[in-house]
Amino acid sequence: MTPPTPALEIDLAQVDRNCTAVARYAAAHGLAWRPHVKTHKSSRIATRQLAAGASGLTCATLREAEVMATVCDDLLLAYPPVDDDRARRAADLATQVRLGVMLDSLASAERLSVALVAVGATARVLVEVDAGMRRTGVAGEAEAVALARAVTALPGLAFDGFGFYPGHVRTAGSEVDAELARLSAFVLALRAAADAAGLEVRTISCGSTPLLWRSHEIAGITEIRAGTAVYFDRTSVLGGVATWEDCAAHVMATVVSTAVPGQAVVDAGVKAIGREPLRGGAGEGFACVAGRPEVPVVRLSEEHGVLDLSQTDWRPVLGEVVRLIPNHICVAVHCFDVMMCSDGEVERVEARGR
Amino acid sequence: MTPPTPALEIDLAQVDRNCTAVARYAAAHGLAWRPHVKTHKSSRIATRQLAAGASGLTCATLREAEVMATVCDDLLLAYPPVDDDRARRAADLATQVRLGVMLDSLASAERLSVALVAVGATARVLVEVDAGMRRTGVAGEAEAVALARAVTALPGLAFDGFGFYPGHVRTAGSEVDAELARLSAFVLALRAAADAAGLEVRTISCGSTPLLWRSHEIAGITEIRAGTAVYFDRTSVLGGVATWEDCAAHVMATVVSTAVPGQAVVDAGVKAIGREPLRGGAGEGFACVAGRPEVPVVRLSEEHGVLDLSQTDWRPVLGEVVRLIPNHICVAVHCFDVMMCSDGEVERVEARGR
Repeated sequence: MTPPTPALEIDLAQVDRNCTAVARYAAAHGLAWRPHVKTHKSSRIATRQLAAGASGLTCATLREAEVMATVCDDLLLAYPPVDDDRARRAADLATQVRLGVMLDSLASAERLSVALVAVGATARVLVEVDAGMRRTGVAGEAEAVALARAVTALPGLAFDGFGFYPGHVRTAGSEVDAELARLSAFVLALRAAADAAGLEVRTISCGSTPLLWRSHEIAGITEIRAGTAVYFDRTSVLGGVATWEDCAAHVMATVVSTAVPGQAVVDAGVKAIGREPLRGGAGEGFACVAGRPEVPVVRLSEEHGVLDLSQTDWRPVLGEVVRLIPNHICVAVHCFDVMMCSDGEVERVEARGR
Repeated sequence: MTPPTPALEIDLAQVDRNCTAVARYAAAHGLAWRPHVKTHKSSRIATRQLAAGASGLTCATLREAEVMATVCDDLLLAYPPVDDDRARRAADLATQVRLGVMLDSLASAERLSVALVAVGATARVLVEVDAGMRRTGVAGEAEAVALARAVTALPGLAFDGFGFYPGHVRTAGSEVDAELARLSAFVLALRAAADAAGLEVRTISCGSTPLLWRSHEIAGITEIRAGTAVYFDRTSVLGGVATWEDCAAHVMATVVSTAVPGQAVVDAGVKAIGREPLRGGAGEGFACVAGRPEVPVVRLSEEHGVLDLSQTDWRPVLGEVVRLIPNHICVAVHCFDVMMCSDGEVERVEARGR
């Protein structure tokens, strides 16, 4: 009997090896490791990260934070509580755990302050700075220091430092050395500006899995948040951050059609693996077959993935189960309600939803 | 108090208007209307489609079919039951409802036959034919007739006709007339081959929302399955199939950052709207703001969407709630566990999952 597919399969032993590797790296370089839980959305996996040495957890959604509060007493909400719902829920969390919040606007800080005061709690604040990605974060050290000062003046908030996400830096390109030097200069300028303003900076939090193993080359940071590293994915491997063997999460899929020559169709489509491109020209497709990296999923419908067989002699048969390594595992995980763990347990992806 | 975002919002009155429009069109052209439920994954929305005149429902996953069996006694599983799990669950369904199955391989037909015989049930079969999309479906009328004959010989199966999905034909291009003529020739050749083989063809099932209003120009079909038309989406509007006012599903999002000039960041990213491209050069981005089609979501992270404000004087403020129209609503719906309906009810997207 083949299992129902598509299904998300988690290799817990590999998860533990990945956690240990990151923990050792962080410890060797004097960095705190606060993994982002967006990748797994599971308190069970988070528990393994904490056991391996994580100093706390990073969350994007309030749902993630509320679930993780059941297993961890030190959370960073890396998302601004700009609306009433987030501010209220963040304040409630601050009554239960040591809460940090990363934000980039006075409006968010003020709203959070009001919500914290209402429940008699406090939160530490990291001012988010744009390190070049141009997504969120204030621009430059002058604005960062101005917001930090404003935060210091608000009740319930304790300025703790700065945070940024260098999502624009990819390891696949040749400019990584220059980007790391730019990030170092950026952090040191931030520190100098804060010092000049008399602000005490305890934390400078940075995080991305593509840059994971080179984080220590960014001068002045205190913490890394890399999330994807718990599972790794095709992007990680093609970016040189991991090997195929390091990949701890797979999407199991069944070959449902071989009617069109030169390809095989599996039952994992956009609704199972997402439509995340490889970046930096590292290759084509949205996933590949585990053990057969030369077989990419080149086209997707909602419930169909098309395997390109042009670079292989392998001819999968109807009903055969294959394991896929998605380009971006965080998005694939979000497609599933449950994960099939290697110890036989079926666990909910419990921090899905809002 | 602003609502928690991102959230999926359904306008039930517009759903009903869309259902009525498709039902009238189908009736006017003597076509059965069997909408694909992948778009909404909700028995409540399906019930409205049936009330408007749908002759039955189309499903891709067994989960969809099992949920829809609670509100409809005539289902088409438009996905091959090539594995044990699907075959067994399809056979169980065939004991409860009139079940049709679309398949493109003898292996699927044989497996389904065995499963049906085991429970003493029968199913009608549509042989899936590739109409040019090169995803699934046997190639051409000779193979189709051969598979139809094989199906006829298998216990538990009743050959009922053919099905195809013309997903390769987009209305944005100028070649639609020629494509419709090709599809007509394709269907007539199928019918002629089946006639010559002495096979009775009751059903020829076709479906895509881009071609919806021109379905009657495809000679010889009996049924349409358009799913997206229940909600429509940005692709539908830019493809000329619907107006912005026809869009019945929106993703509500909150502006969480305006720190980077020229843009605003909302809390709907890949995990809320998907990363589905517009096809056929119809435009850029992954969604647009309702009422402001000139404001696209041009970049996505997992929980961030970046609104490009270069074509508007509108400057949304932090905390403002905007309504987004995703490129592909079926994928956005799959990102949510619940939908906020216009009658105030919060309904589960109950046929998510497997």
